[in-house]
Amino acid sequence: MARGLEVEGFNLKQRHGKARVRVARVWKGKDGCDSMVEWNVSISLLSKCINAYLDGDNSDIVATDTMKNTVYAKAKECSEQLSVEDFAVLLAKHFVSFYRQVTGAIINIVEKPWERLHVAGQPHEHGFKLGSEKHTTEVILHENGALMITSGVQGLALLKTTKSGFEGFIRDKYTALPDTRERMLATEVTGTWRYWYPSAFKLPENPLYFTERYLDVKKVLMDTFFGHPKVGVYSPSVQSTLYDMAKAVLSSFSDISSVELKMPNIHFLPVNLSNRDKNTIVKFKDDVYLPTDEPHGSIEASLSRIPSRM
Amino acid sequence: MARGLEVEGFNLKQRHGKARVRVARVWKGKDGCDSMVEWNVSISLLSKCINAYLDGDNSDIVATDTMKNTVYAKAKECSEQLSVEDFAVLLAKHFVSFYRQVTGAIINIVEKPWERLHVAGQPHEHGFKLGSEKHTTEVILHENGALMITSGVQGLALLKTTKSGFEGFIRDKYTALPDTRERMLATEVTGTWRYWYPSAFKLPENPLYFTERYLDVKKVLMDTFFGHPKVGVYSPSVQSTLYDMAKAVLSSFSDISSVELKMPNIHFLPVNLSNRDKNTIVKFKDDVYLPTDEPHGSIEASLSRIPSRM
Amino acid sequence: MARGLEVEGFNLKQRHGKARVRVARVWKGKDGCDSMVEWNVSISLLSKCINAYLDGDNSDIVATDTMKNTVYAKAKECSEQLSVEDFAVLLAKHFVSFYRQVTGAIINIVEKPWERLHVAGQPHEHGFKLGSEKHTTEVILHENGALMITSGVQGLALLKTTKSGFEGFIRDKYTALPDTRERMLATEVTGTWRYWYPSAFKLPENPLYFTERYLDVKKVLMDTFFGHPKVGVYSPSVQSTLYDMAKAVLSSFSDISSVELKMPNIHFLPVNLSNRDKNTIVKFKDDVYLPTDEPHGSIEASLSRIPSRM
Amino acid sequence: MARGLEVEGFNLKQRHGKARVRVARVWKGKDGCDSMVEWNVSISLLSKCINAYLDGDNSDIVATDTMKNTVYAKAKECSEQLSVEDFAVLLAKHFVSFYRQVTGAIINIVEKPWERLHVAGQPHEHGFKLGSEKHTTEVILHENGALMITSGVQGLALLKTTKSGFEGFIRDKYTALPDTRERMLATEVTGTWRYWYPSAFKLPENPLYFTERYLDVKKVLMDTFFGHPKVGVYSPSVQSTLYDMAKAVLSSFSDISSVELKMPNIHFLPVNLSNRDKNTIVKFKDDVYLPTDEPHGSIEASLSRIPSRM
Repeated sequence: MARGLEVEGFNLKQRHGKARVRVARVWKGKDGCDSMVEWNVSISLLSKCINAYLDGDNSDIVATDTMKNTVYAKAKECSEQLSVEDFAVLLAKHFVSFYRQVTGAIINIVEKPWERLHVAGQPHEHGFKLGSEKHTTEVILHENGALMITSGVQGLALLKTTKSGFEGFIRDKYTALPDTRERMLATEVTGTWRYWYPSAFKLPENPLYFTERYLDVKKVLMDTFFGHPKVGVYSPSVQSTLYDMAKAVLSSFSDISSVELKMPNIHFLPVNLSNRDKNTIVKFKDDVYLPTDEPHGSIEASLSRIPSRM
Repeated sequence: MARGLEVEGFNLKQRHGKARVRVARVWKGKDGCDSMVEWNVSISLLSKCINAYLDGDNSDIVATDTMKNTVYAKAKECSEQLSVEDFAVLLAKHFVSFYRQVTGAIINIVEKPWERLHVAGQPHEHGFKLGSEKHTTEVILHENGALMITSGVQGLALLKTTKSGFEGFIRDKYTALPDTRERMLATEVTGTWRYWYPSAFKLPENPLYFTERYLDVKKVLMDTFFGHPKVGVYSPSVQSTLYDMAKAVLSSFSDISSVELKMPNIHFLPVNLSNRDKNTIVKFKDDVYLPTDEPHGSIEASLSRIPSRM
Repeated sequence: MARGLEVEGFNLKQRHGKARVRVARVWKGKDGCDSMVEWNVSISLLSKCINAYLDGDNSDIVATDTMKNTVYAKAKECSEQLSVEDFAVLLAKHFVSFYRQVTGAIINIVEKPWERLHVAGQPHEHGFKLGSEKHTTEVILHENGALMITSGVQGLALLKTTKSGFEGFIRDKYTALPDTRERMLATEVTGTWRYWYPSAFKLPENPLYFTERYLDVKKVLMDTFFGHPKVGVYSPSVQSTLYDMAKAVLSSFSDISSVELKMPNIHFLPVNLSNRDKNTIVKFKDDVYLPTDEPHGSIEASLSRIPSRM
Repeated sequence: MARGLEVEGFNLKQRHGKARVRVARVWKGKDGCDSMVEWNVSISLLSKCINAYLDGDNSDIVATDTMKNTVYAKAKECSEQLSVEDFAVLLAKHFVSFYRQVTGAIINIVEKPWERLHVAGQPHEHGFKLGSEKHTTEVILHENGALMITSGVQGLALLKTTKSGFEGFIRDKYTALPDTRERMLATEVTGTWRYWYPSAFKLPENPLYFTERYLDVKKVLMDTFFGHPKVGVYSPSVQSTLYDMAKAVLSSFSDISSVELKMPNIHFLPVNLSNRDKNTIVKFKDDVYLPTDEPHGSIEASLSRIPSRM
């Protein structure tokens, strides 16, 4: 939220905007091959409009309905396909430059994972199917030109059936978990990474640059999580695996300045069951599991370059 | 529900079971390559247990906790990978044969779409990633041996950017929709198809037969929806496309006796916006759309072989 | 679905409509006191429009967009507040009588539980707050005049901390559950009841008749579930309690011909925990529970009057 | 997140915990009247466990399974009913004092709105029904003793059918919204307020103090939103109403130091429909609305006392 303002003896911070503005954009290719995206856009404006709060005077308010219309108008203006990040920057620049009241714009967009379909091994010219995890972005632009582009992935669910353990942790009177060097490891990664572009006027020229980066970052995250297709890689904890994944991203992409990963430990509990006479119903041998969403471990960390060294 | 029973001057129909029993099963391959499935199982039993309702006498009740345990015990017994349909049949057979009180079993399972991951072009030996649409099954088995296997797909979201129209429909005083021969077409298919296996003892021997069929049916549904990768196929209505898809399934698979498709028409509305002075903000030219989940058209139909001719 | 039609050697059943049409209706009272409802309407028409499926000929199709407009037009015509059931009947009558192609209409409506707010003990003239469980209805009308009105409640979550047990059930090698005469009982009731009005022209004249019935039925369901405020009533099983609730509804309301209840057993598991050295962490004494949505027991039954005796 | 640590040339911030730990606690009253709560607890620990990330050494890790067990053990220890805030403080104190590695604890709890049922006008001794909006809390405790208690309400959906307008806002080429002094106003309030208790050892002694405060704050929020039951209060914008609500909370409760409100503007769109020949289908007269969740306005602000003046 914006820095606060003193009013009537209190400190007030405020912002307003329009959330869940859905837009799809189709580009008709000259070769008959269509492209399309579907975005869910949320806009939040930091603006000087204190009288709306205090006096019911709306003369400095950008109506949220106007923000919604602007999304459609700007989508229309994009005559060429562009990344979700570039569209967010374009919107942010508009709001900050068009309205003297606006001191900052925060644009969040989730891209729906429509993927071009293949029929008989060939890419279909106008056919798309929904995939799984989602590409997200957050762009924050201040009137002084300061820019922050953060991209991310949501709902990237990964699982490995072996090469995972957890042992040697603190034991106390509340501890019941046994040590193990063999367990399932499942998580649903929510990752975000910040790009190192300090100004909205010095972005990569390729309009799909960030789209490609998204695919590349996802690949690095997954390759690090899973390791070699035959050998895999041993995970001594979600913490350790998360750290390796974050480090791999920073090591691979010099224009990414920090990465934050949330990797819930989604438990697959070994099933052991006995009846009331202590006779075994099921005895676990790395075969039958009870997957559960609730409760789950929550492991999160951010790794960033140290500014003085960038 | 079961046929009713006359009690205390009323007709009573009842069933009870356990829903949302989650189980994952891992099979360790001899070659080091693991397989796994994750199932969400719901069991419903038709059984003679009227005294539980009338007299609070539970002596004929299979506890739902016992049903849950049975899912794990039976998963344990499956030493080889098998289709979700085969597992459902196995459960149904157990309940109907094990308990004299049980006259019928209804097993519903949703399989989570874990897909083997590829790293560097190679299938990973123990790495999996969650995909999108889900494989479902419903197996109904009666004590007289009558069997019904229905398989399905949930959440198959498809979209084409052209080759779709809707025109010539009824016009009356409530009609505002213009005719068109050019629109987006988007849907989320829920499909089910019934197999023609009248007995639980004459099923295909390949334990992954139904898994392969699922992939084949899905392919036929999508190929029919989208048509040739270059040319596509014109859709004059969801109704017409749905019918073609259902017919293609029946024509392709002789052991499928009927197919039911629910294909909501998920609207992508053309965006046209004017401001209050009638000046255009956005004028639609097959480019900017407002996708919306609410409301949606609901088109559903079932197509079945005519019994006398099977 | 409608009875099938033979086409191209197959049997086709079909219906189409519009789902999730949201409408709110405000009535301005003469005394300054406003009333309002919010409905989520789904319409499904059985109609003679086979050529749409076979030939891409839409000339017998009522566009789903037209159905949506009709909802708004008919809501407008309701100059006085009416029950959700009466609005569904009104819509059904329109579709069946207005279109020669339509042989049946199925209207489902969910009413959002907006409740008039009280400020300082007084009912507020235009203030509403959202409550919890929802009032639903399904009206089916055929061109021959046959009418079926079913009303219901969704999401009625009830819990009692005592006066519930489960014992004497079948014990076998898969059984682990102990007998108990003291447990928590929690459920989320989904109930529906059918009214005995065979024709759309002989309904109660009070436009809020069904709204009051809804409140009355809910009260009977809850009173039977909980029993006397001091003494309660012992529940030997969900089955038994469900039966008593259904019977109480039929006994209380002579214009209700059948009632169907789905009462999942939402488990509150006793918490007993030991650490690895068999030392107790928590020992249960009817105090600490683990509530869980997954898995849950599923108990459902319908109770109806026997036709010959109605 | 904790302050970062320099590792391998990067800055690392991390935390881990257990989320969605569900617990219910029943207290048996001496008078036969039971009390109960159901909580969904999330724990996040800031701790010195860097070697888990870097070296796969878990010797400083509190297992998330242990955290879960602790929730149950501590719930057991609560022999008297207490507020969700007090339980969160109790958990936080435990983690910070019990483990030398832990430098801070963040406890989030959502309380399920079980409400005592009334039968025949009398409170039921052991019967409860689920209400609507939820009571939440976040407690943050650092090893230096610094404490932050934030309480909140989620899902408080409010609507008024009149006494709301929006006019005089910025008009530009993207503006289509007309001025109005008569519209529906609907929102779903998410509110949080911070209490002014700097230490975990100087809290109010009444174990239900915060529970009562929650009810009081909710009442002030609603009374301000709706105004007098007969006259109401005119809202010139969500911003203005939000500000009045926040100010009323700070003015009413001296131990609350700040309040933050998120009040999406959930639109009820006036319905005007014409058919293709420009004939009116529906003409709006403050009667028929289209309620929509998507898009919605997003208005949020925080109001806090100015520290020097507290």
